[in-house]
Amino acid sequence: MRITVLTGGIGGARFLAGVRAYAREKKAEVTAVVNVGDDVRMHGLRICPDLDSVMYTLGGAHDPERGWGRVGESWAVKEELAAYGAEPTWFGLGDKDIGTHLVRTQMLAAGYPLSQVTAALCERWQPGVTLLPATDDRLETHVVVDVDGERKAIHFQEWWVRYRGDLPTHRFVFVGADAAKPAPGVTEAIEGADVVLLAPSNPVVSIAPILAVPGVREALSEGPAPVIGVSPIIGGSPVRGMADKCLATLGVEVSAAGVGALYGEDLLDGWLVDTADEKADVPGVTTRAVPLWMTDENATAKMVAEAIILADKR
Amino acid sequence: MRITVLTGGIGGARFLAGVRAYAREKKAEVTAVVNVGDDVRMHGLRICPDLDSVMYTLGGAHDPERGWGRVGESWAVKEELAAYGAEPTWFGLGDKDIGTHLVRTQMLAAGYPLSQVTAALCERWQPGVTLLPATDDRLETHVVVDVDGERKAIHFQEWWVRYRGDLPTHRFVFVGADAAKPAPGVTEAIEGADVVLLAPSNPVVSIAPILAVPGVREALSEGPAPVIGVSPIIGGSPVRGMADKCLATLGVEVSAAGVGALYGEDLLDGWLVDTADEKADVPGVTTRAVPLWMTDENATAKMVAEAIILADKR
Repeated sequence: MRITVLTGGIGGARFLAGVRAYAREKKAEVTAVVNVGDDVRMHGLRICPDLDSVMYTLGGAHDPERGWGRVGESWAVKEELAAYGAEPTWFGLGDKDIGTHLVRTQMLAAGYPLSQVTAALCERWQPGVTLLPATDDRLETHVVVDVDGERKAIHFQEWWVRYRGDLPTHRFVFVGADAAKPAPGVTEAIEGADVVLLAPSNPVVSIAPILAVPGVREALSEGPAPVIGVSPIIGGSPVRGMADKCLATLGVEVSAAGVGALYGEDLLDGWLVDTADEKADVPGVTTRAVPLWMTDENATAKMVAEAIILADKR
Repeated sequence: MRITVLTGGIGGARFLAGVRAYAREKKAEVTAVVNVGDDVRMHGLRICPDLDSVMYTLGGAHDPERGWGRVGESWAVKEELAAYGAEPTWFGLGDKDIGTHLVRTQMLAAGYPLSQVTAALCERWQPGVTLLPATDDRLETHVVVDVDGERKAIHFQEWWVRYRGDLPTHRFVFVGADAAKPAPGVTEAIEGADVVLLAPSNPVVSIAPILAVPGVREALSEGPAPVIGVSPIIGGSPVRGMADKCLATLGVEVSAAGVGALYGEDLLDGWLVDTADEKADVPGVTTRAVPLWMTDENATAKMVAEAIILADKR
């Protein structure tokens, strides 16, 4: 059995831990296609927040309290950069994390594509699933906002981390998406899957940038595998993060039904919602209501099992 | 009064602290022309050990026990790089230090020459002297050695740090020196000086790479200022470091007289030696014997005063 998951960072990483647990039981192979829209260059370093969140979480090295980054992290380099007045100072760049960024940046400078760099980094972390960036090409999520009365586009990280999304926000733009190609293995992982899952990640800034890579949507709709989405909204609120702010920008209702309709029947074969949302209706899509709180790996693995049941049912 | 000092890293930094103390008293301006032959790129970072040793020491941020690097240093990034198997692992790359390297590397990538980068870094450290790299161009000291029966050229840092100079060593090559130009201000600092001092740095791998930049030797010999060297050898041993191994490679006697003769009367107007070496004779060069142990800043400032007396006398 082959399971392919489209995913963002922290919530997606937690979901993937459940997928891995389920897959171990069923002797299934898992491939995660990970969003790169959050990627950013800072202080000369190439930073891939979502790939790293997944890699660290599945490698058992993430900080479960803070949610992002490495457990036992220290901040000496960040303090130095601030002391030099090097901008930006609002991004959380831990010392351990910087080790990853240095290795990645140097490998990219040597000409390796991000997919190969990710495979090399994963040799250390042994995540137990194959991690693929959605694309090896530059694809960055920028956000059109008003800052101090001026309309401009800022990088997603600046919108998310620096401003906590607290700006008049007009739209999200996936810079470079038009010219991007799926990374090697992405199309194959989707077309060759027995089931494709959309992790309960942010639909607007985690899943949408993956779908924006030309060829990915086609592979999903034309491939034989059922596509099952897992709602990131429970009872009208995002499980974590700021999906509500992102959805509001698009004029989409912050509800399981709203996100299901955003993905739509062209993409989805099934839509897994929480028991709190059992009345959620997505035209043309089979829904199923089960507990969606990822309280621990077992609970998450159970969610995954329910998603697979939904896939088999449809 | 304008004092210009040609210098390497750690010993030179200590000497410069004495020059600065002397200069404060005399209201003199100090310019340090610093060796870049030790500079190296590691893990994608541009590292300038001598410039940093001088900057940290004069900025009061060096580690006086270890001799190099930052006081209160931590090593999280280095451990991470080793965990990824990223080579080299033998170089001491501290977390605080990496902050400096990141700022420098990014400024260089943005097109700023090393001399401007150095000035920018010094805005934080306020060393009290003007620090100039000998050149903005690539100039790296490589060492021709036998490793496992094979003759090859390795970077100076590999010879010094990894092998502690403990290899059959044939010669030192200043790669790029032929095409290098003195950094802006270097020639002017030498020609406009009232006195030029050669710090008691390693003559073979700290001072010689500066002299190897076309135009520096000419500025020294044709400029009006007397050139006073301070012996790095006391009683037949280097004050610190491995000048003995370097001198042996050149077939030069490890003595105050030997190093004085290596610089020679073309370069030197005066040669300051330790009282232990009062019989040292350098043909054509006035010598003077005074205590040369840089036990503290006062003792070092006294050495500098003696060097100035020698300059006035000659």
